[in-house]
Amino acid sequence: MKDLRQVTVLGMGLLGASVTLAVMRSISRIRAVGYSHRASTRKKAEDLGVAHEISNGLAESVQNADLVILATPLSTFEDVFQEIAQHLKPGCIVTDVGSTKVHPHHWAEAHLPKTARYVGSHPITGSEKRGIEFARDDLLTGARCVLTRKASTDENALQTVQAFWETLGCMVHIMGPAEHDRTLGYVSHLPHVLAVALVNASDPGRLQFAGKGFIDTSRIASGPSNIWTDILATNSDNVVRGIHRVVKELLRLQTAIRGGNRKQVEKLLEQARARRAELIDYKIRNKELL
Amino acid sequence: MKDLRQVTVLGMGLLGASVTLAVMRSISRIRAVGYSHRASTRKKAEDLGVAHEISNGLAESVQNADLVILATPLSTFEDVFQEIAQHLKPGCIVTDVGSTKVHPHHWAEAHLPKTARYVGSHPITGSEKRGIEFARDDLLTGARCVLTRKASTDENALQTVQAFWETLGCMVHIMGPAEHDRTLGYVSHLPHVLAVALVNASDPGRLQFAGKGFIDTSRIASGPSNIWTDILATNSDNVVRGIHRVVKELLRLQTAIRGGNRKQVEKLLEQARARRAELIDYKIRNKELL
Repeated sequence: MKDLRQVTVLGMGLLGASVTLAVMRSISRIRAVGYSHRASTRKKAEDLGVAHEISNGLAESVQNADLVILATPLSTFEDVFQEIAQHLKPGCIVTDVGSTKVHPHHWAEAHLPKTARYVGSHPITGSEKRGIEFARDDLLTGARCVLTRKASTDENALQTVQAFWETLGCMVHIMGPAEHDRTLGYVSHLPHVLAVALVNASDPGRLQFAGKGFIDTSRIASGPSNIWTDILATNSDNVVRGIHRVVKELLRLQTAIRGGNRKQVEKLLEQARARRAELIDYKIRNKELL
Repeated sequence: MKDLRQVTVLGMGLLGASVTLAVMRSISRIRAVGYSHRASTRKKAEDLGVAHEISNGLAESVQNADLVILATPLSTFEDVFQEIAQHLKPGCIVTDVGSTKVHPHHWAEAHLPKTARYVGSHPITGSEKRGIEFARDDLLTGARCVLTRKASTDENALQTVQAFWETLGCMVHIMGPAEHDRTLGYVSHLPHVLAVALVNASDPGRLQFAGKGFIDTSRIASGPSNIWTDILATNSDNVVRGIHRVVKELLRLQTAIRGGNRKQVEKLLEQARARRAELIDYKIRNKELL
């Protein structure tokens, strides 16, 4: 960590700008540099003061960085890796905040120079809102952050990235990229698909009667479509498998309801209630929920 | 409304006790009487002071009531109607707060005396929490309340029940019981089934990585299993049809994701995002959401 003098975040959306804000708040000796390919976003980033410096060029933004963090959509990673490759300092650590990890590891191997050290990061936080306007210096506080490593991952780089996120208030977990994508497929990407299916299955004319239940169950369907298309596309096997499991559970419920099998319906509802109660208790004990 | 001198609420759970609390707050000239078949709940109701009077007997609780409100689980309605039938004053209005309405209308016709006047009510509010401890005098404020009528429904009773809920802060809508059950099937019962399926399809060992998305999408699965079993059992046709529609949407997403059809995935995500944005705008304009 003590070797980090400049951190450059590429992409000044909700998450990217929250990272530079958190760096400015928590590690004052590190210079936080931000870059966005849009001039209008760079202007907003300047106006909002989300970083020590907003760079006007991608190459220029990374050339003095000790740590580069991609906070752009997953679909841009390959291009960004290629564009920054020749501008990175030797030993520079590169990470990202993408919601899937198998593909980023592949792309980093394919396009980054051997002198750069890639580690995958996924801070599990965010909002259905998007854009720099919603950035907050405490968005990462208390969030879990999964770091992903392969056999080839540099151990020192991994430790530095871990210390970095921990200093910003994250709880760090380390796993392989495939295990990450399986896990997040269930706890994050599958709920998203369900929320989308629920809204699309609903009858717009009746939605005025939606109460808090519908509003909460569907909340994440308000997330940005392009970002989520990237996520689903880069984790398709796990998501396809997850949909299969959910459909099976739905049909099990449907059969019990159609057949008037109250005992079975109540058993399935109670199983879910108990399992969620355990989850909520765990999250409260762990101070992830109040 | 001016004829209402005593309102008796049967069932002192979250919703029942919130109704008596709201009556005491908003219509001080009405006597609010509560009844629960459990002695321990009656004791808590007394201690918490949620009604002017907590009655020790069901018959005794309704005999002077101008309006009786069932706030017990749907599965008890038939028995309760039968037990109170001979104790109601002539002209007494009977309603309920059940989440489905076709069955309650049937049961009321079958068991209440001709001199009693039944109207269906469904205040769309609540919480995944249960029990009198969570009752609040503002739980109904700003909530929609659907009243259900059939050709045989007494017009004056309907108007009185409408004025009653409006005085407690509800926005009242009137429709037939079948239309109510179709509508709520989509906006309330279907999300519940989805939340249950999501939790049951998940792998408990991975749930520690669940973020806000999973927590919100699954929230209503924490609702009481017996209450929800009643709801699903008394609205089975609509719920079965809703599950069919959601499964169709899920398989459509699955096909697009599996086939790497990014354009189609993004189209489906964008459709949901736009539809939910409209819903949220509507709810905000209507002051149902802040």
